[in-house]
Amino acid sequence: MNKEQLYNFKEAMIYSHKLAQISKALWKSVEKDWQNWIKDYGLNINEHHILWISYHLEGASISDIAKFGVMHVSTAFNFSKKLEEQGYLTFSKKEDDKRNTYICLTPKGEELFLSTLNTYEKSQFSIYTASQPIKDLYGKFPEFPDLMCIIRNLYGEDFMSIFNKLEDKFEAELNATSEDEPELAGTHS
Amino acid sequence: MNKEQLYNFKEAMIYSHKLAQISKALWKSVEKDWQNWIKDYGLNINEHHILWISYHLEGASISDIAKFGVMHVSTAFNFSKKLEEQGYLTFSKKEDDKRNTYICLTPKGEELFLSTLNTYEKSQFSIYTASQPIKDLYGKFPEFPDLMCIIRNLYGEDFMSIFNKLEDKFEAELNATSEDEPELAGTHS
Repeated sequence: MNKEQLYNFKEAMIYSHKLAQISKALWKSVEKDWQNWIKDYGLNINEHHILWISYHLEGASISDIAKFGVMHVSTAFNFSKKLEEQGYLTFSKKEDDKRNTYICLTPKGEELFLSTLNTYEKSQFSIYTASQPIKDLYGKFPEFPDLMCIIRNLYGEDFMSIFNKLEDKFEAELNATSEDEPELAGTHS
Repeated sequence: MNKEQLYNFKEAMIYSHKLAQISKALWKSVEKDWQNWIKDYGLNINEHHILWISYHLEGASISDIAKFGVMHVSTAFNFSKKLEEQGYLTFSKKEDDKRNTYICLTPKGEELFLSTLNTYEKSQFSIYTASQPIKDLYGKFPEFPDLMCIIRNLYGEDFMSIFNKLEDKFEAELNATSEDEPELAGTHS
C-alpha cells in the first residue's frame, strides 16, 4: 500500500465507522421508542410501518412497502398477510395494473392506524427531545442536507418522495381538522 | 387540541417520522454491507462490534461494550462469552477495579480483527460511495454537526469519545505502519 492508498484507507475506514456508529445509535433509539409507542396495539414496528405506508400512499404494492419501509420483500409480504388476516387491510388488483397486488387499508385498519397517531407523544421520542435544543437555538429543526443527499444516492429519487407524501397528507388532514379554526393554514403554511 | 397544539403536533410528527425513516434507511444499508464484509470470518455484526470496541479501548467492561456498541447488556455479555469460548478474548478483573469484568482480546482475537480490517473494501460500503459526491463537491466528507449534537444529547458526552478513540488509534497505527514513509503524517495530519 503506498502513502496515498494508506491515507485513503484510513480516511475511508474512519468515515465509514463514524457513519455506522451514528446510524446504529440513531436507529436503536428510534426502534426502542417506536416499539414502546405501539406495543399496546399488538403491533410490531414492521406492521405499523406497513399500515403507515399504505395509509399515505393510498394503495401501495408490496414492492412499495418494501422500498419505503426499507424491508425485504418477503418481510413486507409476510407482515402484510398477517395484517390482512386480522382484517386491517386487503390485497387487490388495480383496474389498470393486473400484475401487481395492491394493499388497501380497511376502515378497521385506518381506524387502528389513526388511533396510534393519536397516542403519539413527542416527549416519548428521544430523537425529538434530543433535537429540541437545536430548534431552540436556530428556531427550526435541523434538515440534514448531507444526510438526505446520501440517502438519495443510496435509495434513489423515488425513495425521497415518502418524506413529501407524509407531509402533504398531514398538511391536508390537519388543515381539514382545523376548518373551524381557519387561521391555522394561513399562520403556518 | 387548540391551533398551536395542532401545529406543534404536526411538526413533531413530521420531524420524528423523517428522522425515523432516515435512521432506518441508513442503518439497514450499513447492516447489509457490514454483514457482507465479515460473513467469511464466521462473525455476526455484534461479535465484530465487540472485537472492534475491545481492540480500541484496550480493555473494555461489558457495560462499555453495551454502551459503545449500542446493544443490551445481555447481548454484549452473551456474544462476548461466545467469543471467549472461541478463544478470541478473555474476561479478567483489573488490579484497581475488582468489581467489573474486563474484556481483553487474545492474540488470536486481535489477529482475527486485524484480518477483517485488511479486507475492508470501501467500494463495498454503500454509505461510503454514496458520500463520495459530497467529498468531490466540498473537498471533504460531511461531518453532520446536527446529528452529532443529537447523538450527544441521546447518549451523553462519554459516548462521543468512541469516535475519537478510533481515530487516535488508527492514526497511531497507520503512522507506525508508514514509518518508512515519514511524509504521511506531515502531509495529512
